[in-house]
Amino acid sequence: MASTTLEIPKLEPSAVVVFGGTGDLMHRKIVPAFYHLQSSNRLPADLCIVGFGRRDLTTQSYRDGLRGALEKFSHSQPDESTWGELAARIEYFRGDLEDGESYQRLVTWLESLPGAAQRRGNYLFYLSTAPRLFGVVAQNLFAAGLSCPDGNVPGSRRLIVEKPFGEDGASARQLTSTLQRCFAETDIFRIDHYLGKETVQNLLYFRFANTICEPLWSRRYIDHVQITVAEEVSVGSRGGYYDHTGAARDMLQNHLFQLLTLVAMEPPASLDAESIRDEKVKVLRSISTPSPREWAAHSVRAQYDAGVVAGQPIPAYRDADRVSGDSLTETYVALRLAIDNWRWSGVPFYVRTGKAMTERYSEIDIVYRRPPEILFALGSKGQLQQNIQRLRIQPEEGVHLMFNTKAPGRSIAIPVEMEFLYEEEVTKQLPDAYERLLMDALMGDSTLFTRADEVEEAWRLVDSVREAWASGSSCTLARYAAGTMGPNEADELLARGGCEWISS
Amino acid sequence: MASTTLEIPKLEPSAVVVFGGTGDLMHRKIVPAFYHLQSSNRLPADLCIVGFGRRDLTTQSYRDGLRGALEKFSHSQPDESTWGELAARIEYFRGDLEDGESYQRLVTWLESLPGAAQRRGNYLFYLSTAPRLFGVVAQNLFAAGLSCPDGNVPGSRRLIVEKPFGEDGASARQLTSTLQRCFAETDIFRIDHYLGKETVQNLLYFRFANTICEPLWSRRYIDHVQITVAEEVSVGSRGGYYDHTGAARDMLQNHLFQLLTLVAMEPPASLDAESIRDEKVKVLRSISTPSPREWAAHSVRAQYDAGVVAGQPIPAYRDADRVSGDSLTETYVALRLAIDNWRWSGVPFYVRTGKAMTERYSEIDIVYRRPPEILFALGSKGQLQQNIQRLRIQPEEGVHLMFNTKAPGRSIAIPVEMEFLYEEEVTKQLPDAYERLLMDALMGDSTLFTRADEVEEAWRLVDSVREAWASGSSCTLARYAAGTMGPNEADELLARGGCEWISS
Repeated sequence: MASTTLEIPKLEPSAVVVFGGTGDLMHRKIVPAFYHLQSSNRLPADLCIVGFGRRDLTTQSYRDGLRGALEKFSHSQPDESTWGELAARIEYFRGDLEDGESYQRLVTWLESLPGAAQRRGNYLFYLSTAPRLFGVVAQNLFAAGLSCPDGNVPGSRRLIVEKPFGEDGASARQLTSTLQRCFAETDIFRIDHYLGKETVQNLLYFRFANTICEPLWSRRYIDHVQITVAEEVSVGSRGGYYDHTGAARDMLQNHLFQLLTLVAMEPPASLDAESIRDEKVKVLRSISTPSPREWAAHSVRAQYDAGVVAGQPIPAYRDADRVSGDSLTETYVALRLAIDNWRWSGVPFYVRTGKAMTERYSEIDIVYRRPPEILFALGSKGQLQQNIQRLRIQPEEGVHLMFNTKAPGRSIAIPVEMEFLYEEEVTKQLPDAYERLLMDALMGDSTLFTRADEVEEAWRLVDSVREAWASGSSCTLARYAAGTMGPNEADELLARGGCEWISS
Repeated sequence: MASTTLEIPKLEPSAVVVFGGTGDLMHRKIVPAFYHLQSSNRLPADLCIVGFGRRDLTTQSYRDGLRGALEKFSHSQPDESTWGELAARIEYFRGDLEDGESYQRLVTWLESLPGAAQRRGNYLFYLSTAPRLFGVVAQNLFAAGLSCPDGNVPGSRRLIVEKPFGEDGASARQLTSTLQRCFAETDIFRIDHYLGKETVQNLLYFRFANTICEPLWSRRYIDHVQITVAEEVSVGSRGGYYDHTGAARDMLQNHLFQLLTLVAMEPPASLDAESIRDEKVKVLRSISTPSPREWAAHSVRAQYDAGVVAGQPIPAYRDADRVSGDSLTETYVALRLAIDNWRWSGVPFYVRTGKAMTERYSEIDIVYRRPPEILFALGSKGQLQQNIQRLRIQPEEGVHLMFNTKAPGRSIAIPVEMEFLYEEEVTKQLPDAYERLLMDALMGDSTLFTRADEVEEAWRLVDSVREAWASGSSCTLARYAAGTMGPNEADELLARGGCEWISS
């Protein structure tokens, strides 16, 4: 949806500086993404990649470490000559994220690197650090003259910010305020890697490049919408982080609300970043903040007990490493949301996400109203099945349509399924979300990144439900066995709306 | 759509009398259909099948002949015990179709057959004779007291009439008038075997058992509709019949207009026979009779020249057996039709049928309007592809949907296809059209048969185009090579409407 005309966009040479350059994300995602961009020849000459870290490494030992990570995390076997081309771009800079002097040294050092003249002051700073340091790094960059929100510096000065963006509305607003003092909002690229996924981007193509979709996409024909982001993994070794975060902040605030807004938004005036993000924010603004009493009826939080996932026994969440034995942190959340606008009034949006569930998948199910049943003999269920449009994000990305047809040789209607599987149509693998997002940030296209007001609106809802949970006894923490699709209470949430979760 | 509640309807015992009992249709279709009904245990005790013929056969030699035909034409290897059960029902009656005395003998003979008392005067007469004898047989049945339009006889007296029903409007009206003097219209079952096809019946299920279909099914979203019934066979040995008939009377008047009405009809008040046929007639009545000048622009007739079909050389139509060397008979016809009602005003319906075409298939393509293209980068064709809903009647019966999706890894829209193939979902073969139609006639359900007014409306249009062809020089007989999809003139017909034939 971004970069509408260029197939292989021409990038300006730039220096990409990764703060947290020795960290997990650099190894797992950023270097593999750069490797694939290199191998498909999409990186301009003189683009260089700088790892900023505290460890005492040489550029060579740093490169060697990344080479090992690539071996482990790339989806294809690395090719030596491509790696050689990429490695030649990689430099290591040793510094302290909280020390202004390191940034002063960084300025001089960056300008001394080969190709600096060709880069003409273009920098992309990547905040892959602990979240508490996001503002610190930005302020240090500003103090060192490496950023300027007014654009009074040569070249582009852009900032990629990893999630989480704040831990509630207040801290997010504070972080926004800090970042915006140092960078222009249009130069701040907040990552939600879900937006980099092909099938998430395809939501807009599906809705707006087809005549048959948009006329049906409203309260007039849609009964309700279900959005599921199910994780098979348990908390594993992330207990320290997760136990003070929980599912609402870890998944709902970002991924689920992003999917929700893309499903529900009005057609944008154009496909530029601001038009699309304007429409996404409008969706969130149309969800008025429920009262604690409303949340009691429309939210479910739960925590997993011991169970079996994919044949493996999983201990209860409270028995996981670095999790409090009486933790009240939710590992599962389900909400019923109401979008009070002309298109969606009266159409419930059910969203759910959880850990240690039956299987890992993300999908959106558009459930249409029942057709009038006057004409057809009923199948064994006693009523015509509802039409369902399924947009599958992962795995087995694709589009499915459940509709009714004549049972062969019998005069009754039966539900059948049509499907289009994304990967069947392509010989190569779908590009990773990080490849796309890095390219877009290098080009300055922020369509697939989250804008400050989107973040803020999402926090408004997450804060509201968490406050309701904290305040009252009416919405207690439910329990579910690991390896199931969530607690009974979540089934009751839908039953109250006259429907049930669609199993994939 | 008929018999909505009974899975295995309880039939009254009846005597089925096939006039033309030694003919081709009895061998190819009627006996195989009865065989499959017998093997699935759907025939009541005391149902008997009588072949009426002129040839000097015993019941045993008659049965033996049918046994041989079954071997040849059944889609599964006949089972001896099932055949034994069926054969015991079959009798042969030697008589002369045009001789009233034969019918007097028939009355007495039928009443002397075993089980006659259990049949309580239920008769189903099947006119599988030369069309010129349809009226003669009906009148003889009436004269012999075997039929009564007022119902003043014991049991049901029903009449199945094979195609063609008349050779123009005038002869069809005359035949209707004759038949209706002998049988009640509700007891006259005019066969169009297309209506017995599962996928044709599924048209109504597809349209009216799904929420997502009906809202899109109108001028508001549909650009045009294409209906193709393509035959691979050439005229073969049927030259004698075909050369004074032609494609318009042989195929258009019945099969294509049946498909057209099922696609275009309004939702019926119920699924009973009269409600559905009322709606089908309304569609035909909404097509006003074009003037010869309009037909010149909106019709194409053509005849095939020599060519190659499926690797076999085919001589020109004019060189076929029993075809006149200067024949002007059309073997191909394409029309553009306008349905002037609220739903379809401005939506052209293109119908075409022909012999000696590239391949044999029947399908309906619903071509949707182009979506607004403001939002998406264009593919190589320079514009977004139109959505197409394809209802495939034969072979490979199914439903297809062509829609646009994001090209993987690229920011453009590309067309892809979802499909549901009917036969994949069933383990057994789809029942043959004749099985269904025989059952329905035995039950007295005329939903899948053509009513007199439908026939008349279809002839109105066919007569009109044939008169236009005969009267003027403006729509001359075009030519196409055997093994192609028709003449250039048919492509021009669509090009004038801004579209093109969709190749399957």
